[in-house]
Amino acid sequence: MFEDAELGHKVDKATFAKREVELRERLLSAQIELARRKDVAVAVLVNGVEAGGKGESVAALTSWLDARFVAVNAYDDPTDEEREHAPMWRYWRILPPKGRIAIFFGNWYTQPIVDRVLGKAKGRDAAFERSLEEITRFERMLAAENVLLVKTWFHLSRKVQKKRLTELESDADTSWRVTKEDWRRFKRYDEFRAISERALRRTSTGDAPWTIIDGSDEQYRKLVLAETLLSAMKARAEAPAERRDVEHKAVQRRSMRPAPVDSKTVLTELDLTQTLRDARYDKQLATYQARLARLTRHPKFRDRALVIVFEGNDAAGKGGTIRRVTSAVDLRLLRVVSIAAPSDEEKAQPYLWRFWRQLPRHARMTIFDRSWYGRVLVERVEGFAQEPDWRRAYGEINDFELELTRHGTIVVKFWLAISKQEQLKRFKAREEIAFKQFKITDEDWRNRKKWDAYADAVCDMVERTSTAVAPWVLVEANDKKFARVKVLRTLVERLEAELGHA
Amino acid sequence: MFEDAELGHKVDKATFAKREVELRERLLSAQIELARRKDVAVAVLVNGVEAGGKGESVAALTSWLDARFVAVNAYDDPTDEEREHAPMWRYWRILPPKGRIAIFFGNWYTQPIVDRVLGKAKGRDAAFERSLEEITRFERMLAAENVLLVKTWFHLSRKVQKKRLTELESDADTSWRVTKEDWRRFKRYDEFRAISERALRRTSTGDAPWTIIDGSDEQYRKLVLAETLLSAMKARAEAPAERRDVEHKAVQRRSMRPAPVDSKTVLTELDLTQTLRDARYDKQLATYQARLARLTRHPKFRDRALVIVFEGNDAAGKGGTIRRVTSAVDLRLLRVVSIAAPSDEEKAQPYLWRFWRQLPRHARMTIFDRSWYGRVLVERVEGFAQEPDWRRAYGEINDFELELTRHGTIVVKFWLAISKQEQLKRFKAREEIAFKQFKITDEDWRNRKKWDAYADAVCDMVERTSTAVAPWVLVEANDKKFARVKVLRTLVERLEAELGHA
Repeated sequence: MFEDAELGHKVDKATFAKREVELRERLLSAQIELARRKDVAVAVLVNGVEAGGKGESVAALTSWLDARFVAVNAYDDPTDEEREHAPMWRYWRILPPKGRIAIFFGNWYTQPIVDRVLGKAKGRDAAFERSLEEITRFERMLAAENVLLVKTWFHLSRKVQKKRLTELESDADTSWRVTKEDWRRFKRYDEFRAISERALRRTSTGDAPWTIIDGSDEQYRKLVLAETLLSAMKARAEAPAERRDVEHKAVQRRSMRPAPVDSKTVLTELDLTQTLRDARYDKQLATYQARLARLTRHPKFRDRALVIVFEGNDAAGKGGTIRRVTSAVDLRLLRVVSIAAPSDEEKAQPYLWRFWRQLPRHARMTIFDRSWYGRVLVERVEGFAQEPDWRRAYGEINDFELELTRHGTIVVKFWLAISKQEQLKRFKAREEIAFKQFKITDEDWRNRKKWDAYADAVCDMVERTSTAVAPWVLVEANDKKFARVKVLRTLVERLEAELGHA
Repeated sequence: MFEDAELGHKVDKATFAKREVELRERLLSAQIELARRKDVAVAVLVNGVEAGGKGESVAALTSWLDARFVAVNAYDDPTDEEREHAPMWRYWRILPPKGRIAIFFGNWYTQPIVDRVLGKAKGRDAAFERSLEEITRFERMLAAENVLLVKTWFHLSRKVQKKRLTELESDADTSWRVTKEDWRRFKRYDEFRAISERALRRTSTGDAPWTIIDGSDEQYRKLVLAETLLSAMKARAEAPAERRDVEHKAVQRRSMRPAPVDSKTVLTELDLTQTLRDARYDKQLATYQARLARLTRHPKFRDRALVIVFEGNDAAGKGGTIRRVTSAVDLRLLRVVSIAAPSDEEKAQPYLWRFWRQLPRHARMTIFDRSWYGRVLVERVEGFAQEPDWRRAYGEINDFELELTRHGTIVVKFWLAISKQEQLKRFKAREEIAFKQFKITDEDWRNRKKWDAYADAVCDMVERTSTAVAPWVLVEANDKKFARVKVLRTLVERLEAELGHA
């Protein structure tokens, strides 16, 4: 894999000077076109061996581009805010918006490779494999969300790397760049080479291939980095307008499941007649609220976080239920996020970005009043998302929730279900109470007409995203009191299970 | 000041129940109106003594409001990212956008009061006075930027506070809420009372008055908090449409300085004929770039930060100059921010918010290619900002830069000046070079017609915002090489002065 990059590619100064002028013009045009179309974001990954010329090559690249629209991101130790979120959070927060280019020096490849070579032997290979698998899935999602990934690897042969490190170290102006750690790693050159090769091989996909750059010659590597970016941008600009733009509408509401043989679904089998009498409600509500309050002060919660998702039929009582949860806990630990139309900054990012930015730090919780599931509910049913997009969303959401839970975030998801009759009753009641009128809109009535399509989407959602780490809890909500207590009890039980009995 | 709040105000349960229903309706309507108009953001400050019922009262308030559009912010130890920014950064990052309500439990009053009572004696009174002065200025800016400040102070007499702390401590469910620190502070009740009174007195302004709430009765304090918010929102909604909306246009370009007696200005006195020969340029550029590179690796820079502002005539060479700076430093420590139209999230915030969010952490630098000075340049000249707004901007900008520099950020500001003739020459040249055509637009030609108005605005800007902590550097830029070297030399000299000679 690295053979070509050890051939000692070279470009002489005259050729370089000539190519530079022409490159600059082409890069600027490509960048202007990118900014004009605003349909793609470009993420350039710059990885490879120490002293391979990554920094200088990126410096040259940014000097040829219009630097105002290029962000260069460092690999650095995570800040404490970053450590209190799932590992990918720090990359999500610096993803480029559409129309822009971001360069990532350190990125999601750095740690897995270092850990594989230098980490504790036990289990490190399995962890490495899992990282590569997750990276592949993550990058596939980025590609589908119109992030163009340009992945470059700067390579040096062992001999050349040693020479470069020695040269850098002996020059007063550059000696600071060579650390003990660099030499320590150089000693394990062969291992790093083998592991890097595996990483590159496993993560070179059609959407996001790697380009290996021979780092031995300054002129050569600068030109190749720039050409790599250019050809990726050119290919993307010339790609045929997506076929999916034309055909998706008709099949928008198609179920993910086979045609039903009987009429049973997870929704029809709910017993919506369950109720809770006032006296029992008051007592149980108070009990579970007190237990929930105690659990959120549990010492073990200090390095965990809680994400609660509320979805449900319109008028199923999400607001009232959320209030029973929030009134139990310290408001200072809590954020309630109501999902409405995305802002323009959110629209310029992959779909999940707007949820990542709201995730809780340690010892905190976020309640999502509607959530990322909008993609496979309203966006699917109303045709706001195209079919390939909502179809891939199930897997992306599972990956997302898996990452959160693996980092220690507890994810609890509620679907509040009411019957069609009960919804009608509540709509009418809302229209009659002055201070509830704002809660009922034409849109609610329109959605109601699509009751069956929504039910279908809910069944698909539960089937495909109710996972062991983040199961769906269906809540029979025809009786509000029953629903509220079930939600609180579920939260208490999940927290107790996760934290150990309080 | 606290007399009324020690009268033992009380509300019985029946009255409370009745008022609650009515309050809820009014709060919801006010909130809906706020969200609909999206012209004001509401920040509710909740301060006061421990055990004064702040938490419960806010919980009641949020349960009456539509909690989805209310953010509750905790006072907490700052994270390391927050510590690496000026103190107000942590509040800027959670300011509510227009149309929303945010509640700040801990806020900019907390630390000054605690420091004044518990801090080291020496100089603490001067620091306290300075904090109050700065808070007043900050809040005046927020008010002018359509942030409605609702400031509440929960008070308890010494006797009642002692009783409440003892009660909370003896109940198993609430004992966690009383810490040793609370008792330690209780011992200094009188001092806290005196200092708080001074803070309240000094910062009660017409725009943002304090409301002191008797915290001794649960029902009473809940109702008063809600009524305080409601009446502030009501008053704001009923305020007459600002007079300034009608009259400002005609005076938009009025100078801030008296009619000139002679024709000298800071701009006319620049010697734009200064040039630098190629050989000297190459040598000096290399020298200063190397020195700049070393300075950014200086150990003392690790707890400093650098902000560089570039303003200048169109075609004055900002881009090329910025490139000479960025090519000297580690790109990973650097962000270049090009100021264009604000996003919708930025439009929903006070003017300076979009710049606060781009400020560098420790050991980092941000280059602003155009900046907050747009307010007093293009926005003033083109009439995008109303006269009262750009007039107050000078003081707000000085406050902003003072806060940055006091935190250790080095602020360097460049105005790149070219002559009108030189600009014409460059515009024409740009139109002829293919890859520079994107740099010249109709807008540039339009701006050029307002040359004198811009010159006037620049002179006002320099006069009013060139301060000892953040002086303007006027750069004679008819000769690009001369300008670049002057910029680099200035940066090197400023950094050397700030960090001690490298």
